[in-house]
Amino acid sequence: MTETLRVELGSRSYPIHIGEGLLGEAALFAPHVGGRLAAIVTNATVAPLYGRRLADTLERAGAESLSIALPDGEAHKNWRTLDLVFEALLRARADRRTVLVALGGGVVGDIAGFAAATYQRGVAHLQVPTTLLAQVDSSVGGKTAINHPLGKNMIGAFHQPVAVVADTATLATLPPRELAAGLAEVVKYGAIHDAGFLAWIEENAGRLTARDPAALAHAIRRSCEIKAEIVERDERESGARALLNFGHTFGHAIESASGYGNWLHGEAVAAGMALAARFSAAQGRIPSADAERLAALLARLGLPAKPPTIARDVWLEYMGRDKKNERGRITLVLLDRLGRGAIVKDAPPAALEDFLASA
Amino acid sequence: MTETLRVELGSRSYPIHIGEGLLGEAALFAPHVGGRLAAIVTNATVAPLYGRRLADTLERAGAESLSIALPDGEAHKNWRTLDLVFEALLRARADRRTVLVALGGGVVGDIAGFAAATYQRGVAHLQVPTTLLAQVDSSVGGKTAINHPLGKNMIGAFHQPVAVVADTATLATLPPRELAAGLAEVVKYGAIHDAGFLAWIEENAGRLTARDPAALAHAIRRSCEIKAEIVERDERESGARALLNFGHTFGHAIESASGYGNWLHGEAVAAGMALAARFSAAQGRIPSADAERLAALLARLGLPAKPPTIARDVWLEYMGRDKKNERGRITLVLLDRLGRGAIVKDAPPAALEDFLASA
Repeated sequence: MTETLRVELGSRSYPIHIGEGLLGEAALFAPHVGGRLAAIVTNATVAPLYGRRLADTLERAGAESLSIALPDGEAHKNWRTLDLVFEALLRARADRRTVLVALGGGVVGDIAGFAAATYQRGVAHLQVPTTLLAQVDSSVGGKTAINHPLGKNMIGAFHQPVAVVADTATLATLPPRELAAGLAEVVKYGAIHDAGFLAWIEENAGRLTARDPAALAHAIRRSCEIKAEIVERDERESGARALLNFGHTFGHAIESASGYGNWLHGEAVAAGMALAARFSAAQGRIPSADAERLAALLARLGLPAKPPTIARDVWLEYMGRDKKNERGRITLVLLDRLGRGAIVKDAPPAALEDFLASA
Repeated sequence: MTETLRVELGSRSYPIHIGEGLLGEAALFAPHVGGRLAAIVTNATVAPLYGRRLADTLERAGAESLSIALPDGEAHKNWRTLDLVFEALLRARADRRTVLVALGGGVVGDIAGFAAATYQRGVAHLQVPTTLLAQVDSSVGGKTAINHPLGKNMIGAFHQPVAVVADTATLATLPPRELAAGLAEVVKYGAIHDAGFLAWIEENAGRLTARDPAALAHAIRRSCEIKAEIVERDERESGARALLNFGHTFGHAIESASGYGNWLHGEAVAAGMALAARFSAAQGRIPSADAERLAALLARLGLPAKPPTIARDVWLEYMGRDKKNERGRITLVLLDRLGRGAIVKDAPPAALEDFLASA
């Protein structure tokens, strides 16, 4: 069964298709790739699993297909890898009608999306996420980026895809650590926006980690609904969209301080959410019991609810580079209760420093 | 006297201020930079001439200023130079409220504009063009890009500035070759859009090359008017905007085949316009006398009206990479008469090949 949601952004609106086996459904792709060059941007891990199948589908949809396989992993989310895409496109004489098709997880989606935003000043792209994290989060909303040695996701663009096709069957091949990393973002939606959904995740934690298809499908659909709703309100993150960064300010610091790729993004976000919840409690915004309830759920899902050891000044250094910051003040996403996030620009610096010293 | 035009693009509309001494007018800058970090992106040639003056003005306008001087020249319009901007911004902890201020010619404007399009997924930028070419063409319209080893301007974005401030006094320090290169783009506007303006350029060629301030001011204003009108009709070059590429398909091939920087962009465009006019005549679109009239005007302005020797296959190789092309067919901008350009997607390939073999 295919479920279709829509992200409503005027002329940049697009569908999100969710279902089992969608990689084979040419009809979903045809409106976007028919009569065009479709360049599949993927990685060395995903290409052997799904590359041939998707290429067949795109060709049945009327496209000429080309495959560009990148090295796998966050450590490669940089200019050098991006340039592999540009070089392949230029060698193939890809013109402005070309559609890039991102087949893979968050890193592939971010690189392919940014390549689409900037190749010949912008071509279309389609997201075909194959990890849970990409299906519930990074493939939706148009944020694209590469990392810079001085900060994560610092170079990028807002560039909405023309469609998202999430084939839940691809989750069968996902390593358990990656599945858990995706569940971290699912928890995030509950924590910032929907206490009922958070309770549902608690009740169904066992089914989710056991990859029960119906439970995963519900988690993906509800996550995409919440993300679409927030992105529709604030496409370019001038306000409410920053809520989606719950756990990410601490999380990005964990990723940067540990070297890109040692912690998975979702793992760092999990530890970051636990920290943000505890700091919310320390600030008197929520009861400590609620922070511990969130941490316990993350632990049940196989996620780290504690950060690695990081010196206070290193925390501040990396958190100080966050894109949400203004005028040198660190912006945080905290909780006003479980199910309601808050963008906080005036957290007392001394309190944050004390908190980090003992984190 | 300051003249102000507006480029009307809805929420992306902006003013173009043209006049003598505007680099010193804090009031023009204050609405855009007040209370923000203003990062001047310039080059090693322009910085000593105007950098301090602009920094003073920006500080009087209420900004904190930072200067980023890049190496000078088209040969540096690449990722490595772009990354110098990112690195300086990240080291300065520049946040999303930062405004980049491009002070220089077309290369500086293109790099600073692309840096603004992609730093933290997009910040504002202001264009302060100091060459005639940048004042009449590249600072207006929001096209930004860097070159790729496999093609000119292949990586970029559409990102409109928040304002353009063209100080005509800066033309006093412009080398004669650069002045002529700017006049090539002025001729372009007449050739594609306004026969009366073309006749005016012919009548005033001597005043223009002698840098008569009133003649230059008129040429700049009329060029910006025409460019604004075309960009308003087609911001992202899905149609009419391609007219602005008159002379550029041949011109880009000349630049690429000769190595970036040996021919100035405007010189290559001049030779490219002469070729495009002659090919228009060969195709029976205009009388040969009109093509020769255009070539004669370019020569009077000190511009090359003939290309260097390039083998036919090299022409086709580089012209085949043009961004206007579709499905492997070369798109050309030709003339239907002097004062009216035409976007031609179906020029007979054999005729073009024969023409290039004898070009």
